Amino acid sequence: MKVTVSRKAHFNAAHRLYRPDWSSEQNDAVFGKCNNPNFHGHNYDLIVSVTGEIDPVTGYVMDVKILKDFIKSEVEDAFDHKNLNLDVPEFKNLNPTAENIVVVIYNKLKAVLDQHLELEVTLYETPRNFVSYDGK
Amino acid sequence: MKVTVSRKAHFNAAHRLYRPDWSSEQNDAVFGKCNNPNFHGHNYDLIVSVTGEIDPVTGYVMDVKILKDFIKSEVEDAFDHKNLNLDVPEFKNLNPTAENIVVVIYNKLKAVLDQHLELEVTLYETPRNFVSYDGK
Amino acid sequence: MKVTVSRKAHFNAAHRLYRPDWSSEQNDAVFGKCNNPNFHGHNYDLIVSVTGEIDPVTGYVMDVKILKDFIKSEVEDAFDHKNLNLDVPEFKNLNPTAENIVVVIYNKLKAVLDQHLELEVTLYETPRNFVSYDGK
Amino acid sequence: MKVTVSRKAHFNAAHRLYRPDWSSEQNDAVFGKCNNPNFHGHNYDLIVSVTGEIDPVTGYVMDVKILKDFIKSEVEDAFDHKNLNLDVPEFKNLNPTAENIVVVIYNKLKAVLDQHLELEVTLYETPRNFVSYDGK
Amino acid sequence: MKVTVSRKAHFNAAHRLYRPDWSSEQNDAVFGKCNNPNFHGHNYDLIVSVTGEIDPVTGYVMDVKILKDFIKSEVEDAFDHKNLNLDVPEFKNLNPTAENIVVVIYNKLKAVLDQHLELEVTLYETPRNFVSYDGK
Amino acid sequence: MKVTVSRKAHFNAAHRLYRPDWSSEQNDAVFGKCNNPNFHGHNYDLIVSVTGEIDPVTGYVMDVKILKDFIKSEVEDAFDHKNLNLDVPEFKNLNPTAENIVVVIYNKLKAVLDQHLELEVTLYETPRNFVSYDGK
Repeated sequence: MKVTVSRKAHFNAAHRLYRPDWSSEQNDAVFGKCNNPNFHGHNYDLIVSVTGEIDPVTGYVMDVKILKDFIKSEVEDAFDHKNLNLDVPEFKNLNPTAENIVVVIYNKLKAVLDQHLELEVTLYETPRNFVSYDGK
Repeated sequence: MKVTVSRKAHFNAAHRLYRPDWSSEQNDAVFGKCNNPNFHGHNYDLIVSVTGEIDPVTGYVMDVKILKDFIKSEVEDAFDHKNLNLDVPEFKNLNPTAENIVVVIYNKLKAVLDQHLELEVTLYETPRNFVSYDGK
Repeated sequence: MKVTVSRKAHFNAAHRLYRPDWSSEQNDAVFGKCNNPNFHGHNYDLIVSVTGEIDPVTGYVMDVKILKDFIKSEVEDAFDHKNLNLDVPEFKNLNPTAENIVVVIYNKLKAVLDQHLELEVTLYETPRNFVSYDGK
Repeated sequence: MKVTVSRKAHFNAAHRLYRPDWSSEQNDAVFGKCNNPNFHGHNYDLIVSVTGEIDPVTGYVMDVKILKDFIKSEVEDAFDHKNLNLDVPEFKNLNPTAENIVVVIYNKLKAVLDQHLELEVTLYETPRNFVSYDGK
Repeated sequence: MKVTVSRKAHFNAAHRLYRPDWSSEQNDAVFGKCNNPNFHGHNYDLIVSVTGEIDPVTGYVMDVKILKDFIKSEVEDAFDHKNLNLDVPEFKNLNPTAENIVVVIYNKLKAVLDQHLELEVTLYETPRNFVSYDGK
Repeated sequence: MKVTVSRKAHFNAAHRLYRPDWSSEQNDAVFGKCNNPNFHGHNYDLIVSVTGEIDPVTGYVMDVKILKDFIKSEVEDAFDHKNLNLDVPEFKNLNPTAENIVVVIYNKLKAVLDQHLELEVTLYETPRNFVSYDGK
């Protein structure tokens, strides 16, 4: 009897999409306005979903307060009100596309969650563009 | 050609999370503010999703009006404006966590739906906390 | 140059609508399902709006962090995960309708905000029913 | 490392649910108010989700701008501000139920997307009724 | 102590914007895609707001169930799943723009509400376009 | 018979809140995380509301397509995917708080709109923090 428990969170950050080994023209051609050298930014919304058996003692798959604390320590404290390219080590050499950000968040949360729990992370870059990753 | 048809619904209810065989301290430690003996409450939002083949005669997997009526008779009439602990028989001896509620709703709807339809139920306890169950 | 600054917040609570000086039949006739003696509950959403001149030094009408802290101390700490009828002194002798709740919240916030700021409070009892009050 | 990239879009259209080979009474019995011979309409919301490997060069599964352009050319230009029954060839002989519309949209997008990408389409007929199809 | 009580509702309808005394070219120039002779449609969302004194006996400005019933009888029964141009008498000779629809709804509701209540109606034609009218 | 017509829009931007004539400590004390020298960012949502008489010929207060074009030329083209501090002349010497941004947007739109129309602008910096300005 596996149930999925989901928690929404959010963080605000600046970023720029580009490859330092490409010319400005090549970056503009592929990344368009997202290649502004002065950065732009987003309110990122996050849905973290963990799947597992219900504990018959508590009725919880996992205490959502603990999940909320993990999201705070692993994601919000690290990314909120930051410049992803300049302030976040994971993106020093990794282009902070939504796809790459969601994989980084998945890996950070996977490392601290109970091993028997399945994990899926959905990241909204804008209300109309979002990505999700479940480790497969 | 299987399509999933989903319908949103909602109900308002009071509840309290606790185990009667635990001390007040133990319940506070595990369930925190949710253990208020005077109860608290939520606007629960519900998404009921049924999956099956499209009927080539009608173009429907299932008439949404019928699904809406099942949700009303099985869920809204039973839970809306109720105290889940005191008024709903299923939670007399079952802690009304979101996980346990979603399984109860799944079982009630599964019993009345056509057997060949797959079912998934998602329950929002708040806009930021939600659970889902598909019988697996 | 007056600008309005708004902050959203939320709390979850149980309540019951009734008059103790009325018969059960009279309460049912007026308050319907909201008169369940075992209570029901809601996720209340709140929008607090303050209007004033922009401070030319900071560019703020009011620091939203301070507004957030006032909402926490005056509203969330007092109402969240509570039974409004039993746990909140303001509703000992006042029927906790949305209208009465929004006036109570307005008065609590008005008392702590800078006198020169105008205040309006909007309270969602459900996503489809809401009330607002600006002290007039 | 497969990631799903989703894009929201929308179109407004009129439609009528009925079978021309049925009597008016039979159509009313099955399709109710949706059988109004003068049509009614909806703001359809659409979520198009493509799943594939992240391109290590760009950090994209697929450039969302290209996905947005495909949705515009295949769906919005064809359906927006149209009468689905009268103006859209695919529904000349196909009842425009949400189920049939989502399959038509899936097939149109599948034909233009890179073959290695998996596709799922979700269509909201109203905020409370929606369908999804992934080609299985 | 005046409080505003608001209720959300919705209806789905088809319509066409045009003037019968204009040429097709003139209608296209002014109304663009909205002049499709085969009609298009929307999920209209409605917010009805009434303002008045709180009744000290009930704690209500107005029972929301009564407001909900007025919206059903005056607006939903008249407009839902209808073609505004062909099925609704008010638009026989009145172009069903959002502006004209909101005034018609205001007038219908004003006629049945208690005279001492102030009324404002907001109508969403799409989630991004909306109009409001308060009788002034 | 004055009706208000509103249009939603959005733009994504980076910004930093600080005063160049203050020390880093003073800026941190007042602007907290918003003073990150590497910038952070937001998805700004915008509601532009114009109020005026309904034109009896068209049934419009103002053609929403024209309002949409003004928002694009005056706001989106100027602010979207930009760094407000570095790329937008209006904020060269003006702290880009939500309050200051909403006044700048109001002034830009007021200059191009028909003089007889009243204007109000609401700006969401996040889904929970927003400001509005109507020129008074």
